[in-house]
Amino acid sequence: MTKVAILGFGTVGSGVAEVLSKNSQGIARRSGGEIQVKYILDVRDFPDSPFKDCFVKDFSIIENDPEVDVVVETIGGAKVALEFTTRALKAGKSVVSSNKELVANHGYELLQLAKANGVSYLFEASVGGGIPILRPLTNCLAANEVEQITGILNGTTNYILTRMIKAGLTFEQALKEAQDNGYAEKDPTADVDGHDACRKICILSALACGQHVYPQQVPTQGIREVTLADVAYADSCGYKIKLLGRCLREPEGKVCAFVAPHLVSCENPLAGVEDVFNAIAVTGNAVGDVMFYGRGAGKLPTASAVVADVIDIARDPKRDRGNQWGPGSEDLVISSDGLTSRWYVRANLSMDQARLACGEILPLARSGAPAQEAAFLTQPMTYPQLMDRLAGVETCSVFRVL
Amino acid sequence: MTKVAILGFGTVGSGVAEVLSKNSQGIARRSGGEIQVKYILDVRDFPDSPFKDCFVKDFSIIENDPEVDVVVETIGGAKVALEFTTRALKAGKSVVSSNKELVANHGYELLQLAKANGVSYLFEASVGGGIPILRPLTNCLAANEVEQITGILNGTTNYILTRMIKAGLTFEQALKEAQDNGYAEKDPTADVDGHDACRKICILSALACGQHVYPQQVPTQGIREVTLADVAYADSCGYKIKLLGRCLREPEGKVCAFVAPHLVSCENPLAGVEDVFNAIAVTGNAVGDVMFYGRGAGKLPTASAVVADVIDIARDPKRDRGNQWGPGSEDLVISSDGLTSRWYVRANLSMDQARLACGEILPLARSGAPAQEAAFLTQPMTYPQLMDRLAGVETCSVFRVL
Repeated sequence: MTKVAILGFGTVGSGVAEVLSKNSQGIARRSGGEIQVKYILDVRDFPDSPFKDCFVKDFSIIENDPEVDVVVETIGGAKVALEFTTRALKAGKSVVSSNKELVANHGYELLQLAKANGVSYLFEASVGGGIPILRPLTNCLAANEVEQITGILNGTTNYILTRMIKAGLTFEQALKEAQDNGYAEKDPTADVDGHDACRKICILSALACGQHVYPQQVPTQGIREVTLADVAYADSCGYKIKLLGRCLREPEGKVCAFVAPHLVSCENPLAGVEDVFNAIAVTGNAVGDVMFYGRGAGKLPTASAVVADVIDIARDPKRDRGNQWGPGSEDLVISSDGLTSRWYVRANLSMDQARLACGEILPLARSGAPAQEAAFLTQPMTYPQLMDRLAGVETCSVFRVL
Repeated sequence: MTKVAILGFGTVGSGVAEVLSKNSQGIARRSGGEIQVKYILDVRDFPDSPFKDCFVKDFSIIENDPEVDVVVETIGGAKVALEFTTRALKAGKSVVSSNKELVANHGYELLQLAKANGVSYLFEASVGGGIPILRPLTNCLAANEVEQITGILNGTTNYILTRMIKAGLTFEQALKEAQDNGYAEKDPTADVDGHDACRKICILSALACGQHVYPQQVPTQGIREVTLADVAYADSCGYKIKLLGRCLREPEGKVCAFVAPHLVSCENPLAGVEDVFNAIAVTGNAVGDVMFYGRGAGKLPTASAVVADVIDIARDPKRDRGNQWGPGSEDLVISSDGLTSRWYVRANLSMDQARLACGEILPLARSGAPAQEAAFLTQPMTYPQLMDRLAGVETCSVFRVL
């Protein structure tokens, strides 16, 4: 019997309780014993909940109850969640989390703390929602040196971009639709400005390179600047615009990580990832390219990943899970300025001027384009080289081509 | 230090040695100790191999060496491989295998034998080559009741179908090209007739339903009957023809499993899986749809999965890996005759006759079709219902629509 306390009865927390209850028989069979929710911590009251007898408002009840084996943290944010996670680990309880902000900012210290207390800190649900990605990365791909990770890591922005591409909505219209459908928060900043994707690529990068990567080390650009004109030009040459979180292994243990909109060729399976779905492509030096695809958010998908972590702990509470990483360092993350790629440029100039500036280009067309607008794909070059060539040009959009 | 013996120095076996050598540092770090190849069993001589000092011709040397912790079986087939696997497990050595034929036919007894001897029998590489799928299914999706598995499980047939679709080659031309490129064997029966995909869906089904599913229980149809005409008709309505292995959970613990060509909508991510790539879509009752994608065969991708299993054992040799399943039974697998779906039909009749027979249909067109040929998609119905409606009609192709 494993006893669980859930911190926070919001979307994910209530999903965890639901999955543990709904699939209890199969979960007990696969865990080697029953998994029972003993406490749910929430400031609110839920008198009609089937779990109404579990609610507590004081964390110390959970902290001091030796029967609680696993604490599920679905509070979010990095304040209360940090305090409770720290106290739970110190009390010798394993912690399972869906909280990417906390892991991206405090993962190293919390993993160390877990190790020091002989327990586990697991957070499969923090990246890709229900998609199995962290455990496959650390276990199933353990024979590989991971060379690259490229992910569509945020369902909200992918939904917005899909609606712009498929329904011709503007960014603002698509954002409103996403909000109306519950896919975007009232304050959509964390999603549309790329912060959420940034936290997730930090976690993936840390697992791949073995050192903590902090969000402030990862240059992050969101999708506010993507226009319908860009979408149309991309479409004209067989590309889709996607917000990608990327991590590339560099020599001497360095890593290049960033978040930015990219043009992705329709030949690439990432281009077909639509709506709120996420996908993470991993390149290993033995396996080549593998991709993991599924729902990156939502109550039950995220709960699926949280409960998988709980089951893992229930099966074998004291096992070292090999998901540790080392401390971060200031010079770990290097700039993407050295990364050569083709570029998509939309600017106010003639195609002749574009050719004069950038050399061999692929001109793009769209119906209804203003006369002074040129859009094109460049040959492969670095960002500084591109900026050098475009000196003095009034650019509207500049996106990297994957 | 973990010592490994590799049985068979063919494509996969030599890839395992190469990956263990090439990535030895990272593997040692992630395993908590060095992993060393002590023996390689092969009837042939490899005097120029960097592993030339490891070769032996007598399995009993491996069997009787207490230093050997893990035996990697990459012999293939179900005769010698069965004997050596049995002897290795009885000798208290864990066995890692890429051999789908052996697992699909003898998985239950070998898993039991491993358990009885306190060791592991792991076979991640037997399905999907390098794609992490078995461990994610048993661990990462452990919170779910798995409702469906749908896989493009054979790279050879997917290559042939892709070349038919994209280059307009006939089946025979595409098969020859696949053979010339080393993607198909000289005797392509196991691939093109679906037997390889059948073995893989048996393994996936056993993990999902917890009981052994034998290949002879799984109706299997290959791709020999897929014509360019079918490909063209499918294309005309936004579908691709793919060979799918499918497993559906049925009431009372039954399972419906089969292998057959299907029309897959271009909206479905499986339709975009091309060339020798494989993909496995899993539907869980919490996570919804997730998909795993990558190279389903090849030296290093397959070795990546084999070595991941070896690392898993090296980290914790005695751990129960939760990959057991129960014995099979004659009435476990039920017929797909109860499964309702739309159907693609190409037959020698007029479209009016087709309507008369099948009711509401979606007529399909292709250039150069003979006058007496009709192709269409039906409304959803079962196979017996379809056959009933088509009684007396001379059909050329009948494929299920996913």
